Amino acid sequence: MKKSGVRSQESGEIHFNKVAIIGVGLIGGSLAMVLRQKGISSQIIGIGRGIKNLETAKKLGVVDSYTQDVKQGVKDCDLVVVATPVASIVNIVKDILPFLKNGAIITDVGSVKKAVVDEIEGFMPEKVFFIGGHPIAGTENAGVEAAFLTLFQSRKCILTPTKKTDKIALESIKAVWEAAGSQVILMERERHDKILASVSHLPHVVAYALVNAVADMKDLDENIITYSAGGFKDFTRIASSSPEMWRDVCLLNRGAILDMIKRFQATLSQLKRMIEAEDGEGMYKEFERAKEVRDSLKAAKVGE
Amino acid sequence: MKKSGVRSQESGEIHFNKVAIIGVGLIGGSLAMVLRQKGISSQIIGIGRGIKNLETAKKLGVVDSYTQDVKQGVKDCDLVVVATPVASIVNIVKDILPFLKNGAIITDVGSVKKAVVDEIEGFMPEKVFFIGGHPIAGTENAGVEAAFLTLFQSRKCILTPTKKTDKIALESIKAVWEAAGSQVILMERERHDKILASVSHLPHVVAYALVNAVADMKDLDENIITYSAGGFKDFTRIASSSPEMWRDVCLLNRGAILDMIKRFQATLSQLKRMIEAEDGEGMYKEFERAKEVRDSLKAAKVGE
Repeated sequence: MKKSGVRSQESGEIHFNKVAIIGVGLIGGSLAMVLRQKGISSQIIGIGRGIKNLETAKKLGVVDSYTQDVKQGVKDCDLVVVATPVASIVNIVKDILPFLKNGAIITDVGSVKKAVVDEIEGFMPEKVFFIGGHPIAGTENAGVEAAFLTLFQSRKCILTPTKKTDKIALESIKAVWEAAGSQVILMERERHDKILASVSHLPHVVAYALVNAVADMKDLDENIITYSAGGFKDFTRIASSSPEMWRDVCLLNRGAILDMIKRFQATLSQLKRMIEAEDGEGMYKEFERAKEVRDSLKAAKVGE
Repeated sequence: MKKSGVRSQESGEIHFNKVAIIGVGLIGGSLAMVLRQKGISSQIIGIGRGIKNLETAKKLGVVDSYTQDVKQGVKDCDLVVVATPVASIVNIVKDILPFLKNGAIITDVGSVKKAVVDEIEGFMPEKVFFIGGHPIAGTENAGVEAAFLTLFQSRKCILTPTKKTDKIALESIKAVWEAAGSQVILMERERHDKILASVSHLPHVVAYALVNAVADMKDLDENIITYSAGGFKDFTRIASSSPEMWRDVCLLNRGAILDMIKRFQATLSQLKRMIEAEDGEGMYKEFERAKEVRDSLKAAKVGE
């Protein structure tokens, strides 16, 4: 059996005859655009629950066809990209397995990897392959109308192979993300989850807690939120992300997030003690240290 | 003695013959632009320590003249705007008092009011007037080159009169900020400090603590900062503000900031307990509540 998605010997390029994108939103839609523009797929089918979004995806030329029937949609596909909310990934993969052809590759884009990959590997059959993935990219907007070809360009994309991972399937998915312009990084799923807990999940939890702490300030008998300037508005932007999504992330990456919350609580308590003690020198050092992180990000041009 | 800065009976407009701006940066420079464009002042002198910035202010037409000698500079001025770092305001006001003409008005733009206003009122002579002010406006940029005419437009400007405040001087400063397009709000200085502790000072302290907590994550033997996406980058932007300024704000508004840190710690602990208990419903409610704050800000078009 010839495996789909293998790089051709001649051109070095990756190709899939038929690709299903389950969840044609910002991420799924942008990846579909890459697959088409780079000639990686001859045929792209969009699968989702919302008919309006699917119609838009077709109208915009992001997909060739669409269906709301996931089992029908994945038939004959060589690659299935699961780009749905992270809590739904495991069940979707389980549901589609009986309908996949031999040699098909499934990949996901979920922002938690250990819980998802471990569960999926527990029930994967031999002749279908799963590669856990997470492109570190996004915008504030959702839906296929927000999708664009260069979303993944110069961004990191983390793939989390395990001992069970098929090497050729891994190479194929790596080639897809490289075609999207991403820097592909392979790492252990636990490591991925710790890193994301630090740079993404903790900031969101903190932003939610901060916005609510301020909203709870009822002493002043006035909506003090209307006085908010720069600082607080940045927090409210972060805290305006989907409550469903962040609930699911917190449930799925609970351990790593709790660990980071504890670390943050310690840093904050230290700063609080300095303020209590009027330790101007200590504060200055802490503030300057944080500022240097920003400058190092700028120097590295991370995600700008 | 005719007091300067009084609205003319005929036109209802405010006018000062000579105005000194001490600290011709983003705030001071933008206010100077307003004074000139609205014809509020015939003559504007810029006062500061950095000669380059003063030269630029003159070149850009933001000020008519400049000096590094604060005592010489305020001579004959009807209005003195102190737009220097908040920790320097009290001493500057004290230093210039002997050189001011009778009837002169001093105002400031500092982001902490109680500590500043209380101390200044302790030594103000009878024939010079002080009005504490704080325009809630700003950008990431500093220096006169960042100044622009519309910085204060549609922003709130808080003035903090006390029992000792001269009513006519207050009216004059109110008229200046209204000419700048601001919504002027009079409030008690303690109230100002509580509100700013909530919507500005706490977010900055939290951002500093969060950036440092993540920077301290050495377990992974890699610079995880390079994986940062949206959420964390917003924090680093907030934490990139001047360490000196935020040290001084934390020292000057210590009580209100400590109170807000405690409130935030409680909200965060509650969220942490929910994550520990895998209380998805509780998390969802908390996250949705925070999202609603964002939506209410959007609806009110606060500072956008």
